[in-house]
Amino acid sequence: MTRARERALRLKLMAFDVDGVLTDGTIWFTAEGDVMKGFSTLDGHGLRMLQQAGIELAIITGRRSKALEQRCENLQITRLYQGVEDKRAVLRGLLAELKLDASQAGYMGDDVVDLPILRACGFAATTADGHPLVRQHVDMVSSRPGGRGAVREVTDFILEAQGQLAAFNARYLADE
Amino acid sequence: MTRARERALRLKLMAFDVDGVLTDGTIWFTAEGDVMKGFSTLDGHGLRMLQQAGIELAIITGRRSKALEQRCENLQITRLYQGVEDKRAVLRGLLAELKLDASQAGYMGDDVVDLPILRACGFAATTADGHPLVRQHVDMVSSRPGGRGAVREVTDFILEAQGQLAAFNARYLADE
Amino acid sequence: MTRARERALRLKLMAFDVDGVLTDGTIWFTAEGDVMKGFSTLDGHGLRMLQQAGIELAIITGRRSKALEQRCENLQITRLYQGVEDKRAVLRGLLAELKLDASQAGYMGDDVVDLPILRACGFAATTADGHPLVRQHVDMVSSRPGGRGAVREVTDFILEAQGQLAAFNARYLADE
Amino acid sequence: MTRARERALRLKLMAFDVDGVLTDGTIWFTAEGDVMKGFSTLDGHGLRMLQQAGIELAIITGRRSKALEQRCENLQITRLYQGVEDKRAVLRGLLAELKLDASQAGYMGDDVVDLPILRACGFAATTADGHPLVRQHVDMVSSRPGGRGAVREVTDFILEAQGQLAAFNARYLADE
Repeated sequence: MTRARERALRLKLMAFDVDGVLTDGTIWFTAEGDVMKGFSTLDGHGLRMLQQAGIELAIITGRRSKALEQRCENLQITRLYQGVEDKRAVLRGLLAELKLDASQAGYMGDDVVDLPILRACGFAATTADGHPLVRQHVDMVSSRPGGRGAVREVTDFILEAQGQLAAFNARYLADE
Repeated sequence: MTRARERALRLKLMAFDVDGVLTDGTIWFTAEGDVMKGFSTLDGHGLRMLQQAGIELAIITGRRSKALEQRCENLQITRLYQGVEDKRAVLRGLLAELKLDASQAGYMGDDVVDLPILRACGFAATTADGHPLVRQHVDMVSSRPGGRGAVREVTDFILEAQGQLAAFNARYLADE
Repeated sequence: MTRARERALRLKLMAFDVDGVLTDGTIWFTAEGDVMKGFSTLDGHGLRMLQQAGIELAIITGRRSKALEQRCENLQITRLYQGVEDKRAVLRGLLAELKLDASQAGYMGDDVVDLPILRACGFAATTADGHPLVRQHVDMVSSRPGGRGAVREVTDFILEAQGQLAAFNARYLADE
Repeated sequence: MTRARERALRLKLMAFDVDGVLTDGTIWFTAEGDVMKGFSTLDGHGLRMLQQAGIELAIITGRRSKALEQRCENLQITRLYQGVEDKRAVLRGLLAELKLDASQAGYMGDDVVDLPILRACGFAATTADGHPLVRQHVDMVSSRPGGRGAVREVTDFILEAQGQLAAFNARYLADE
């Protein structure tokens, strides 16, 4: 078993960055400001499966966006932390609340500002087009870029490591 | 003749998923929610030719979207099934209504939730960037990704298998 | 001199398709319908240079869009033909009005419906991601896809064939 | 030390083009005109680091856009020059105001209209998908295309040349 799988096996909380991870990193501005975000439908189903598998989800991001709030409501993700200066501090609060150890938490981020929280987590992931320095400090780099299925690769990987992916697949491949 | 062409030859109903197939899988959110979808003009013409060739079209999707309704109106596709939990059940209803056999129906989808309907159809297709598990269970994988002409490849393939593509091409290549 | 350059050398009118040529082929729908189009800034400068070089520009498209009207106003393109069923007929009208021969007119299109007008013109071009059948019937295929500089490659090619590109470049590379 | 690094080492002012550099070159039109721009979150952090390193930032663009004004406000970039006919003249004004030499100024642009200002600056950069003629006249070509992290590569390169990148990285990689 690879080190990344061993680490993913222990996860009870998985947190994600937004811009560049759940999106392709493009921030869309109009005269009204930062108004729109594009999310992946593949990622959406991956996040739902992670919830169904009993893993806590959280979104921890430095920006604020009504579009993100709508997407989280759509995915029934309630642990949404926006406008965060110190992501690692938010993680610690979550660990205390959920009575978890850092080794049971994971984070997926794409830029150097994510390095402190990535290094504080038991499992760290980034995207194919994440910053080169981040790619050197994580357990897993997705083959797809942010917003194009990168998150789904990570959620599939975690479910597989925890031995739960086969049950999901069996459900979809069952003869009636 | 390949197995995929043999299967495409029998089609009288072809149904499509939306996000990731008719679009690139990006779901665009603003403060108002899921508001916009991007469709391919190449796909549009393919769907029109399929209609002209007498093949019934249907859209079967798990989400709901006003943008999709506009696109279907624009393409004069009336069999639009949104917010569908059990796509295979919708397919069965269509087969009964149209007095068709499952071997005469096809579906194109991109994620694992599409596996039950894909496996129930005579002809199953997915996109270049569909989920890896789906790619293992279909008759045809387009070379283009979703929303970038993937559907057109499938509609051209079906028309070609049914011996109708040459007539369309002849029309466009006719000397006056 | 290649045949494509010889043909481009004679052009006095160059017409373009919109979706898939001036855009990447994505048609953006909201609840209000087909509302937005994305154009390339590289293409914009190419079209301006073509106008400055005295070549007549026209846009001939099968769809209708307010977004396109805005872009044409922005580029000061007045020969805009929307909702066109028979593009070849529009071309003929233009040739009569401008007292030109078909060999002095060019068209760039990306789908099979463009084949009649492409074959009627002295110079025919398509994009890297145009329909395969179209790519077989044109003088030039751009290396970039539609909406990402495909038009600029064609305008540069025409200006180069007509011996006018060097003068434009000299202007930008002049020492003060 | 490469010539590009030597030139980047002297920079005290770095100016950027918008369309094709800070964006992917797509200009988004609706019925209301040119309304939206997509910026990269990776680029945003790079621009912030450049400011923190004491390098003056400027945006010099030929177009005008409310969306750009919002992004500049968001990034606290105050030197924004829109609707500029002669970019080199704006640069000269900036050099006079800041009492800098042209060798201490850089520009990143993607099209032939940027050649005069690029050639007037001590350091010139373009994007992976910039116009071929521009790529021949610059000190650095980013490996990423415009709007997808091209600017971040340049800002990282400048900070590295000036010996400041290690300090930023150390901050993100520090043990608590």
